[in-house]
Amino acid sequence: MIIVLKPNTTEEGIQRVVKRIKELGLDAMVSRGMMRTIIGVIGEEDRIRIQPLEAIPGVEHVMPVLAPYKMASREFQPEDTVVRVGQAEFGGAGVSVIAGPCAVESRDQLFAIAEAVSKGGAVALRGGAFKPRTSPYSFQGLGEEGLNYLKECRERFGLPIVTEVVDTRHVEMVARYADVLQIGARNMQNFSLITEAGRTGKPILLKRGMSATVKDLLMSAEYILTQGNSNVILCERGIKTFEDGTRNTVDISAIPALRLASHLPVIVDPSHGTGRRELIAPLARAAVAAGANGIMVEVHHCPEKALCDGPQALLPTDFAEMMDEVTIIAEAMGKTVSRMPKTGRKETASR
Amino acid sequence: MIIVLKPNTTEEGIQRVVKRIKELGLDAMVSRGMMRTIIGVIGEEDRIRIQPLEAIPGVEHVMPVLAPYKMASREFQPEDTVVRVGQAEFGGAGVSVIAGPCAVESRDQLFAIAEAVSKGGAVALRGGAFKPRTSPYSFQGLGEEGLNYLKECRERFGLPIVTEVVDTRHVEMVARYADVLQIGARNMQNFSLITEAGRTGKPILLKRGMSATVKDLLMSAEYILTQGNSNVILCERGIKTFEDGTRNTVDISAIPALRLASHLPVIVDPSHGTGRRELIAPLARAAVAAGANGIMVEVHHCPEKALCDGPQALLPTDFAEMMDEVTIIAEAMGKTVSRMPKTGRKETASR
Amino acid sequence: MIIVLKPNTTEEGIQRVVKRIKELGLDAMVSRGMMRTIIGVIGEEDRIRIQPLEAIPGVEHVMPVLAPYKMASREFQPEDTVVRVGQAEFGGAGVSVIAGPCAVESRDQLFAIAEAVSKGGAVALRGGAFKPRTSPYSFQGLGEEGLNYLKECRERFGLPIVTEVVDTRHVEMVARYADVLQIGARNMQNFSLITEAGRTGKPILLKRGMSATVKDLLMSAEYILTQGNSNVILCERGIKTFEDGTRNTVDISAIPALRLASHLPVIVDPSHGTGRRELIAPLARAAVAAGANGIMVEVHHCPEKALCDGPQALLPTDFAEMMDEVTIIAEAMGKTVSRMPKTGRKETASR
Amino acid sequence: MIIVLKPNTTEEGIQRVVKRIKELGLDAMVSRGMMRTIIGVIGEEDRIRIQPLEAIPGVEHVMPVLAPYKMASREFQPEDTVVRVGQAEFGGAGVSVIAGPCAVESRDQLFAIAEAVSKGGAVALRGGAFKPRTSPYSFQGLGEEGLNYLKECRERFGLPIVTEVVDTRHVEMVARYADVLQIGARNMQNFSLITEAGRTGKPILLKRGMSATVKDLLMSAEYILTQGNSNVILCERGIKTFEDGTRNTVDISAIPALRLASHLPVIVDPSHGTGRRELIAPLARAAVAAGANGIMVEVHHCPEKALCDGPQALLPTDFAEMMDEVTIIAEAMGKTVSRMPKTGRKETASR
Repeated sequence: MIIVLKPNTTEEGIQRVVKRIKELGLDAMVSRGMMRTIIGVIGEEDRIRIQPLEAIPGVEHVMPVLAPYKMASREFQPEDTVVRVGQAEFGGAGVSVIAGPCAVESRDQLFAIAEAVSKGGAVALRGGAFKPRTSPYSFQGLGEEGLNYLKECRERFGLPIVTEVVDTRHVEMVARYADVLQIGARNMQNFSLITEAGRTGKPILLKRGMSATVKDLLMSAEYILTQGNSNVILCERGIKTFEDGTRNTVDISAIPALRLASHLPVIVDPSHGTGRRELIAPLARAAVAAGANGIMVEVHHCPEKALCDGPQALLPTDFAEMMDEVTIIAEAMGKTVSRMPKTGRKETASR
Repeated sequence: MIIVLKPNTTEEGIQRVVKRIKELGLDAMVSRGMMRTIIGVIGEEDRIRIQPLEAIPGVEHVMPVLAPYKMASREFQPEDTVVRVGQAEFGGAGVSVIAGPCAVESRDQLFAIAEAVSKGGAVALRGGAFKPRTSPYSFQGLGEEGLNYLKECRERFGLPIVTEVVDTRHVEMVARYADVLQIGARNMQNFSLITEAGRTGKPILLKRGMSATVKDLLMSAEYILTQGNSNVILCERGIKTFEDGTRNTVDISAIPALRLASHLPVIVDPSHGTGRRELIAPLARAAVAAGANGIMVEVHHCPEKALCDGPQALLPTDFAEMMDEVTIIAEAMGKTVSRMPKTGRKETASR
Repeated sequence: MIIVLKPNTTEEGIQRVVKRIKELGLDAMVSRGMMRTIIGVIGEEDRIRIQPLEAIPGVEHVMPVLAPYKMASREFQPEDTVVRVGQAEFGGAGVSVIAGPCAVESRDQLFAIAEAVSKGGAVALRGGAFKPRTSPYSFQGLGEEGLNYLKECRERFGLPIVTEVVDTRHVEMVARYADVLQIGARNMQNFSLITEAGRTGKPILLKRGMSATVKDLLMSAEYILTQGNSNVILCERGIKTFEDGTRNTVDISAIPALRLASHLPVIVDPSHGTGRRELIAPLARAAVAAGANGIMVEVHHCPEKALCDGPQALLPTDFAEMMDEVTIIAEAMGKTVSRMPKTGRKETASR
Repeated sequence: MIIVLKPNTTEEGIQRVVKRIKELGLDAMVSRGMMRTIIGVIGEEDRIRIQPLEAIPGVEHVMPVLAPYKMASREFQPEDTVVRVGQAEFGGAGVSVIAGPCAVESRDQLFAIAEAVSKGGAVALRGGAFKPRTSPYSFQGLGEEGLNYLKECRERFGLPIVTEVVDTRHVEMVARYADVLQIGARNMQNFSLITEAGRTGKPILLKRGMSATVKDLLMSAEYILTQGNSNVILCERGIKTFEDGTRNTVDISAIPALRLASHLPVIVDPSHGTGRRELIAPLARAAVAAGANGIMVEVHHCPEKALCDGPQALLPTDFAEMMDEVTIIAEAMGKTVSRMPKTGRKETASR
């Protein structure tokens, strides 16, 4: 940590700051420049991080030197984390695709879509039973009934289930049904929820908040890791910008930035990220080319009747096409797109 | 709702959309322009809102005509809502100030600050017992112990308590202690939490999310109002922008925009909004000049020892000065700054 | 300047960086922490600023300690700069209001509006003869013909003229007519233009770019100051954010932030900043309460016929009302709103 | 164009708006809904676009139906524009790479880098002789001397020259040296400059402004197209967001969005877009996977001595590696990366 003092800070002022640092069991190294005095703090930076040193009179600003996350960092763990979900893997040599409807709307709808995405090559089925909706008048999900349909689909198609949890009171119940607990963008900093979800030990798919930095996302992952759960899949799903031609702006640079800073797998959700069906496949290709470990997309057999987010869902035929395109890019990257074999065992596709 | 069709949509395509609208019990009015065909939807727009019409082939985009919130709108209730908190009011002719530490750190700390803000003219005491912190290594709050200190302060100084709730499982407990339940920016779209908080019937202080639009904030208020609880205080606390000289950018225009669109009271939190102590008073003055119904600020008797957000807290003397400045602006606006009398009954200050 | 090295940098790597710093005539102070080695650079920071030290192998990041502007800073000049424009002043004890149409559309239009704003209390007339418009099909201004009308209005109403220059080739000509050269938001970083405008010695009204930070604005001011022209008026006019209910988001905190960092006067343009007529007066009040030295607004006698930006223009009666409101807030702040007397000499209004 | 009236607008108010539309030679179609009256405008929308209808009393908002650009749109020209630059092409079946230093610093530097990028497979040489720099104290470019070095390099290596023009007064001179005139992000809305540059008939490389939407970029392209110059190459180079881990956020979705909306070629500049050397190749791959027609990158043989933007420049070896990676992705997309043959004639590489 580096502490920059205001111009004209007196020697007494300097010593006051130094004393405070030493009280915290750290060492201070004073560097008197022509324009400013700077104090380098030596020791365990975290001990000082929680102290608002900027509030000390004479301090102009405090610059942390280290990343504020630890367990999520590459420095802590140089090798990639591989999260296993059923027979699929996130973080290894493959590219894994999760697909399904935005919301579980009915048993028939879910079965039709699950069949399509299973055939199309998805390794996991997504579908929300609890939907966080901006409007209280919008469809809020089927709740436990929806979870039951998801469970039936797992049994029928052999696809592990990814589903969102939105309330600490539901974590235990959702965890009984789900293979992966999804934390939505709006809940990325719902620290009670992510802590509780982390405690289940289940893989957590953690979506980046719409206004969260890459660093914020890793801090939220850190909450889960500190619960002893290292099965965290990070998901870039678009951030808020002034651009109004897309629902959000997918931050593709977050993929390599996260891969460099952390050992956790990174997937991309181009459906929510763009909100426009015609942009999903190009962004899925770009994500894989930038090094993503997977893709999550919305598929609906009849988007215009979808109760939620119809315009950003792919038709089953679009999905199959996207899978082909993603496969070609993955292979160019020296990777393979993971596929579920008909027998139920996963194997690696080659086109 | 207005539906714009893609160029060169066939007559059959047009009729398909019209048929769909009529199936929903609404009427459609087709307008054939030189460049585009447009369909105006007549009837209850909400019936169609949940249908993703943009997913129908041939539809280019769908433009809602009405605001998506109802009970929160001025059209629904033209007169101002006045939320009563103890003897204080938010939304009437006065300007009410809430003050206190970011977090409750100890009994002594809270009593010292409560006394200072009580003397300084605050009408309610804020202080977090549950703190949503970006880092799992940061101080997370004292929990119920902190709530007890807050309760003691209410008894001692006659100040109603504003405190944050972050977990649906805690809502009932926090509501036993608090006069106002605060929903933090990170939880503005934690719909389970706001619904549960709304159900208590207690006044809710709803902070705008860092990346939420004015419309999003009103949609979250709508969640609370639909629970039969109209005691909602909206709070502008800064939004995320590219500007890096302040923690966030306080959107002062949101104050008149919210006051025009809604009947709910609006307060401003310049502490979180700027993150810089020297900008708090200017922003508090600006907020009142723009029509805010109140101000919420952080006060700490020793900011450099604060366990949370020290640099943005005012010293008790700064607070007194800010109160004087806010009082002058309020009076210029023909308003008064509400004060708690020594006897415990609220009256109106005149300088 | 502080240089943070990557973890595990060898002693040789450290010495390489130190050598490079010494070659530049500066001194280096090495601080070896547990996690990172940090090098403080002592001497004239500017000498090193233009060197991309971040490109040296082993360097993780470089943190400048000082603000990159000098002549624009309060450290360079502690007392306020007062810019004189005709008989008006920007930066002194008063609040000065500039008003007029967005664009000069015709002689009649300009005279009608000039008369109204003169009566209403503006101390300068704004009006664009050259309009930077997003669309090539929009009205681009009357050019020199418009400048002539502005000149006539100055003679008739005694109001100094503020008008925009958009092309280096026009600077000399526009300077012959104008009392203040306006640099629009889109040209804030058109460094050729601001340098050329600065060279005229005329007062420059420099608008903040839509995506410029406070620091960027001061850097652009620095360009003008280094031309020997200290007559710079800074103008906050709204920044781009994700909020879509207003045209831009007026950053009111930029006013005190600029006033603390710089000696230059700061005014606010709530017309462009909000794009909504009903928000102009509240934002003008807020700006003055936050410490602005002036306000610039658009006034049009018939906004619906305005060739440019009609929805954000005030009617003359709205303008008079806004002036009353601004006067009340200014007086509460211990300031006065400057007025032009009928005799043509400026005096100070008292309500 | 669709005009939504305020609630409770009287019949007289409706007729006033209709009258105004008919005065403009257009037809109006009134649609009276339960909540709002809506007026559809039939005819040439552009005629009405310049009229601020929102300023008419009773009008709540005006929604344009058509894109505001014409000549830049796919509707206007369905087939791709191919811009020829020397023997290279932008917009056809290939992927073309422009490379070179940020700034021309010296004859030796430019020759060394030109040789490297020529060998590495670039089809054009970039290098700034006029540099728009945030600080007046930063290196501003060598001016015409730099243009001469660029010209020499073209003769020596057969590479066409891409160089920035920043001042209308220099357009003619720069056009004498350059094969492509670059308009920088800060000048995207410097309409005088882009008009003047457009008039030369030379290919224009138009960079997206840091806070410009996709629509804004196409509007600026429209300025050039209306000068009779259709040789416009659009360049995505990152937009401003709150994310602080990268210099800007490259908006990869802008590539397919621009390709769908317009016939103009689109390239991506991952150097400025990320500001981090290690993110350049992943973003270049992503850009090509998303459908970009080319890439522009900064290459420097000694980034730590670069006078401008060193940290974001590739070393010649990094560049060669990036070219290999881009080639692989291009081939996966069924495209080829254009290469300059040693004889000076362009041919298509196959790896």
